Amino acid sequence: MSKISATPQPPYYAVIFTSTRTSDDLGYIDMAANMLTLAAQQSGFLGVESAREALGITVSYWTDLASIKQWKANLDHQQAQKLGREKWYASYKVRIAKVERDYGL
Amino acid sequence: MSKISATPQPPYYAVIFTSTRTSDDLGYIDMAANMLTLAAQQSGFLGVESAREALGITVSYWTDLASIKQWKANLDHQQAQKLGREKWYASYKVRIAKVERDYGL
Repeated sequence: MSKISATPQPPYYAVIFTSTRTSDDLGYIDMAANMLTLAAQQSGFLGVESAREALGITVSYWTDLASIKQWKANLDHQQAQKLGREKWYASYKVRIAKVERDYGL
Repeated sequence: MSKISATPQPPYYAVIFTSTRTSDDLGYIDMAANMLTLAAQQSGFLGVESAREALGITVSYWTDLASIKQWKANLDHQQAQKLGREKWYASYKVRIAKVERDYGL
């Protein structure tokens, strides 16, 4: 979370999840932590990077679209998504993107 | 910056810039603000989202790869990139990705 993900050579996939929160914190921190732990156990998971100020941005990295679809359909994750829509997020956007190139320092 | 970008229907491109900072703050805030202003004036710019905790994540959105290339080559931006590598960033990764699908609340 606090480190840049050590992703392999492209191509791979990124799920960019951008959100603004409501003031309802009940259960949010625990659920967010649980979902990170659970995501990291999924097939095709490559890493996750996250930061929040006014906006929250979580980028998770995956080997392929099938892995992303499978994670979205995970039953515990489905429950978290439902609570997110109902309670925790004022707004959000999910963008699924194919990483074609990367470089860094 | 503090709002979710109102991007058009996919496909479009995302540049995911993830970084950790050094302790050298001299000039950083001003340069970061200037680069956001300048980026928003570029051809093909669609929006930018940013947050920083231990990790900084800035995602900028663009219509196409040519616009991203042009922005990378911008002379003022080149100077900022040079200072970033030399002074401000302990590590960073740039990922260029094609957004294939999005949805939200």
